Parts: sequence; structure tokens; C-alpha cells
Amino acid sequence: MSDIKSYETALNPQARAALKMQHPRVIWLTGLSGAGKSTIANELEVALNARGKHTYLLDGDNVRAGLCSDLGFSDQDREENIRRIAEVAKLFIDAGLIVTTAFISPFRRDRELARKIIGECHFIEVFIDTPISECERRDPKGLYSKARSGLLKNFTGIDSAYEPPAAPNIHINTIEDSVAHAVSKILEVIYKAEKTHILPAPPKK
Amino acid sequence: MSDIKSYETALNPQARAALKMQHPRVIWLTGLSGAGKSTIANELEVALNARGKHTYLLDGDNVRAGLCSDLGFSDQDREENIRRIAEVAKLFIDAGLIVTTAFISPFRRDRELARKIIGECHFIEVFIDTPISECERRDPKGLYSKARSGLLKNFTGIDSAYEPPAAPNIHINTIEDSVAHAVSKILEVIYKAEKTHILPAPPKK
Repeated sequence: MSDIKSYETALNPQARAALKMQHPRVIWLTGLSGAGKSTIANELEVALNARGKHTYLLDGDNVRAGLCSDLGFSDQDREENIRRIAEVAKLFIDAGLIVTTAFISPFRRDRELARKIIGECHFIEVFIDTPISECERRDPKGLYSKARSGLLKNFTGIDSAYEPPAAPNIHINTIEDSVAHAVSKILEVIYKAEKTHILPAPPKK
Repeated sequence: MSDIKSYETALNPQARAALKMQHPRVIWLTGLSGAGKSTIANELEVALNARGKHTYLLDGDNVRAGLCSDLGFSDQDREENIRRIAEVAKLFIDAGLIVTTAFISPFRRDRELARKIIGECHFIEVFIDTPISECERRDPKGLYSKARSGLLKNFTGIDSAYEPPAAPNIHINTIEDSVAHAVSKILEVIYKAEKTHILPAPPKK
């Protein structure tokens, strides 16, 4: 083998995405625990796969148990958690995939950091907007009940803040929108962006 | 939206891989700085892409600058670096991709941890075996020279250990093997594993 120089042949992100005939994208879902992020994310991934799109889903199940198993739920650890998720999402973008992330991601500053890391042109912020009263009524994992009784500390909406997005790219109201409707709203934005290469302007306040 | 329950529709790793018509795999390259890991990794990715395979490459350029930008080169930080890379590679496996990793990964224990995290059936360890004298002669980034003069601490092979794999799945001798030959050796193993679903036994010592 001759001397190793700075390699000249390297596969670029465009080549990886071209093989998949799609534009890489991160669909960043944010909302309270129990808002419906995982349900919508999973249905969205199934719908995209059915349309031949190459996808991945980052959520608590596969991230908190592995890459971020060393992190807790303090503000500082939440920030590092979101930073790592954004960095991993960026790698998936580079690999040409459409990635959905389903994390509470409660702090505006951290979501802005994620947008910066991933890149404005790849980032679609989706606010899964469910009032806390409704999330608490659903309480699918019994977490609100635990948090109310003090068994769970730093729980978003109870003793840790949730800062709703001021101008998300997509706003889903889960009281009015069905899961199917939420998914089709997101698909529409992805397909429009695919055609125009332009992400939608955030809705006016 | 009705109550959010544990979602029943979720895309599984098999569905993601099926769309790509391939078996996900991690090609884990290990070897000294300057051994030729990045050169071989890049050529391998180009070759796989040309064959319609969906790939990704994790290396110092995209990992050390992002996900692991908070880590240094102490033994402890190297361990955490490899743990995160393995966890990310596992996510890519889950997404159905063939991932090449190009990191010195000097410690046997850390590579075994990576194998455990990623899963035996997905993990192909490739020893890029170049004598340190040759790596130092090449010194493509001038790092050995810096390390010898004491400007760089904890440099593998100089003042930090490199533990060669005892039984790698593939052994590349870069003095004898050309880059093209190294790539074809690795491709052969990937394609054989693709057909038989069985990884090659590590070569006998």
C-alpha cells in the first residue's frame, strides 16, 4: 500500500440520498409526555415506508436506553440528551434518511441548538400540542400520577418547565386532529418540501 | 384523538432493511493512526454504493467534531467515545444500513463492548494491520512527529497502548495488500454473510 494521503474518493451525502431518491429531513416532534408524539411518529414512519421512503425513528426507547443511558433528567442532562440526539440526527441526514425524533425536548434553547446542529434546511419542527389536563387524563404510563405524588422528580409540566414553540413549522392540535390527519399534515409538508426544496414558513402567530 | 396507548403499529428493523434489500452490518475497522483505516473505509463505502448498497461511514471527522466533541483522549474518554460510536452504529443497524467505522479503537475491552452492544451477528471486526514503523514513516497528519516531540499526549502506539485483535474476522496486512485488494477481501465477507447469514469464523491464531 502506498503512502496514505488525504483520501480523494469519498461518498458524499448527495450520493447516499440519491440512491434513496429522497431528500433527507428531520421531523422534530416536541410536546408534553402523553401528548401523542410516539403514536404519531410511529404512524408517520409506517406511512413513509409504505411510500418507499427510507426512514428512521429516534425516541426514548432506543436513545435513552443506549446512547444516553448515562444521562438523567436534570436541566443539564436534558440539554446534553438533546444535543446528542441532534448530532445523531445529523449523521442520519448525512446518510440520506428521513428521521423522525419523538422527545419532549421541553426547552426552546435546546430545540434551537438542534435546529442549528441539523441545519435549517433539513429541520421541520412539529408541535404536538395537547393541553396538560388532557395528557394527565390519558397518563398512558402512569407518570403524571407518580409525578403528582412526588415519586418522580423533574417531570415536565409538573416541576419542570415546558416551553412551547413560538413558531413551529407544523402545529398539531391533538384534540381536534386525528392521528391519521396529523400524519397527513406532516406528509404534505415533507412532499411539498421535496418538490420545492423550500420548507414552509412557520405559521403566523 | 383517542387515548394514547402503547402504539401497535411500528416499523421494525426488518422492514427498514427489506426496503434496501440488504442485511445491516457493522464493518468495524481497528488499527493504528496512519494504518489506512480511513482510506480503506472510504473506498469500501464507494464500492458498496456502486453495488446499490445503503451505507454510512462513521469516522473521526463526523463523530469527534459532533457527538463526541466533549470527549478527550484519556483512557476513560476513549472508552466513552467507543461506547457512543457503538450505540450509534446500533441505531444505524436498526435503520437497515451497512455501516463502516474507522477508529483506532485501541483497547480490546472496548471493542468487545462494541461487539456486545451491536450484536455478534452484525459485527465484523477488521484489523488494519500496519506496523508502527510504517505508520510513523507515512505520518499523513504529522501526528507521530508531534507525539514524539511531546506536543501530543496519550497518542496510541507512543504513550498510549494499542491492543491488536486476537481473532479479527478479517486481517488486512497493508504492506502486502493494496487498498483495492483490502476492499475486495471485505466485500467478499459481506456478500458471503449476506447469502449464508453466517459471519466467518475468526481466523485461527
